[in-house]
Amino acid sequence: MNLLVIGTLAFDNIETPYDKRENVLGGSATHFAHAAGFFGGVRLVGVVGTDFGDEHLEKFRAMGIDCAGVEVAEGKTFRWSGRYEADWNTRVTLDTQLNVFADFDPRVPAEARDVDYVFLANAEPKIQMKALDQCKSPKLVVADTMNLWIDIAKEDLLALLKRIHGLVLNDEEARMLTGEANLITAARKVLDLGPDFVILKKGEHGAFLVGKDMHFSLPAYPVESVVDPTGAGDSFAGGFMGYIASVQNIQPQTLRRAMLYGTVTASYCVQGFGVEELQKRQRTDVETRFNDLLSIVTL
Amino acid sequence: MNLLVIGTLAFDNIETPYDKRENVLGGSATHFAHAAGFFGGVRLVGVVGTDFGDEHLEKFRAMGIDCAGVEVAEGKTFRWSGRYEADWNTRVTLDTQLNVFADFDPRVPAEARDVDYVFLANAEPKIQMKALDQCKSPKLVVADTMNLWIDIAKEDLLALLKRIHGLVLNDEEARMLTGEANLITAARKVLDLGPDFVILKKGEHGAFLVGKDMHFSLPAYPVESVVDPTGAGDSFAGGFMGYIASVQNIQPQTLRRAMLYGTVTASYCVQGFGVEELQKRQRTDVETRFNDLLSIVTL
Repeated sequence: MNLLVIGTLAFDNIETPYDKRENVLGGSATHFAHAAGFFGGVRLVGVVGTDFGDEHLEKFRAMGIDCAGVEVAEGKTFRWSGRYEADWNTRVTLDTQLNVFADFDPRVPAEARDVDYVFLANAEPKIQMKALDQCKSPKLVVADTMNLWIDIAKEDLLALLKRIHGLVLNDEEARMLTGEANLITAARKVLDLGPDFVILKKGEHGAFLVGKDMHFSLPAYPVESVVDPTGAGDSFAGGFMGYIASVQNIQPQTLRRAMLYGTVTASYCVQGFGVEELQKRQRTDVETRFNDLLSIVTL
Repeated sequence: MNLLVIGTLAFDNIETPYDKRENVLGGSATHFAHAAGFFGGVRLVGVVGTDFGDEHLEKFRAMGIDCAGVEVAEGKTFRWSGRYEADWNTRVTLDTQLNVFADFDPRVPAEARDVDYVFLANAEPKIQMKALDQCKSPKLVVADTMNLWIDIAKEDLLALLKRIHGLVLNDEEARMLTGEANLITAARKVLDLGPDFVILKKGEHGAFLVGKDMHFSLPAYPVESVVDPTGAGDSFAGGFMGYIASVQNIQPQTLRRAMLYGTVTASYCVQGFGVEELQKRQRTDVETRFNDLLSIVTL
């Protein structure tokens, strides 16, 4: 188990143009870990309330997720409620209840501190930094963030950017962080802030990776029936980091293949609410779709 | 000269978020022919007014464009005025003056009637059909269309679709033609209407090609400074068809490579107003950028 993720575990209330669900198992670390789980173990650091229930953690363990770093705190689990508009591209947050996450003080278990691969899922940059400080000498640290932190915790975020290798952002976040409308230019400006590479996620339009001497662009896997896009970005990151941790190198060729694996795990994510589709799938499914995607993008 | 295009030659007034130009040489056939010109000759069928001026046609000829099929009619050349909003994705048509194009009765010159490759650029479906009727036995006929014809000439358009091999559409047109929000599903529904393949153009997000047993998806070439997106779709089609006509086969592998060439010529198009950037470029530039794009999309 050479991969660590720190982030949220949550219950989500989700409205889509076609359906509505309550108490869906979610959270950035949940999605990431389920996607990364296909490629070998992943160590999860987060916090849940006493309402979380052990049956969820049992399912996590069945997916190859080590939950030793999941603290159970007195109170309620993080809750998010949101709605997707008819075009799927507009997401409205209806409610956010931090609950036990408000006082989250991440503690990375002793046996998880020497992992080589670390993903800091979306959380307050100070929390991400606290978790990173406990890791001994990771070879690859990748972080996610969101508009809120760019807005209210930019100093902390900029400090974090100097200590990570990769940053994943969506188009809106990239524009907000850099003040650049053109996404390629925005990605290059992010590199000036510290990271060796940036992955720009464009949802149904795919993703691209820009590094100092590297540019790789990939369309999304063509999913004809999207059920719920929640967690697609974290599922992408999970497939990306999970594959890298499984092959144990960060060569450009590995990062490119990892982009395809991330695209595959994200595509399964959006085919169900929360992680329900990811929980149904096996590594063989991932390989089948990887080959399918390869045939779609290969000259 | 085994490639024929029929479409508009125009003067455009264009406003972008950063600049404004009047009397820009434009039109669907103009953009197509300039892009196709890199790959060998192209025969152009269209109409201009007496205001067009022979210096433009001289430039066309210098780009390898045969203008024998360009009729000069009494009156003014087609004019279009439009504005791009700050996000570049919204285009507002401010004015359209059909002028001599209103009575356009396409006449394909005798020597152009036996070409193997035909592109019917955006025009009223009846006009596209009239041009097609004059071609003897083309191996590959590809057409473009627009919302207006889907709206007011759908019967004619559906009749045309039964006689062509390929259709190029943008996302909005695909949704309008099929009533399907999901672009992959929409593309498949277009196949049911007749064409063997459909190319769905998504502007800065690239394009994909769907056929009965084929799916190829490609991101756009990363242009950091867009000057004017007008004609990008026609320039894409020009590179696509030009390459195919130059290698004289329609194997799946050829169509895939042609998508890359179309992406390259479209990327040059958007770097200048009208066709000014295309007029500056050589085939060697196209090959250089082709290889650059290949490195960006290859695993």
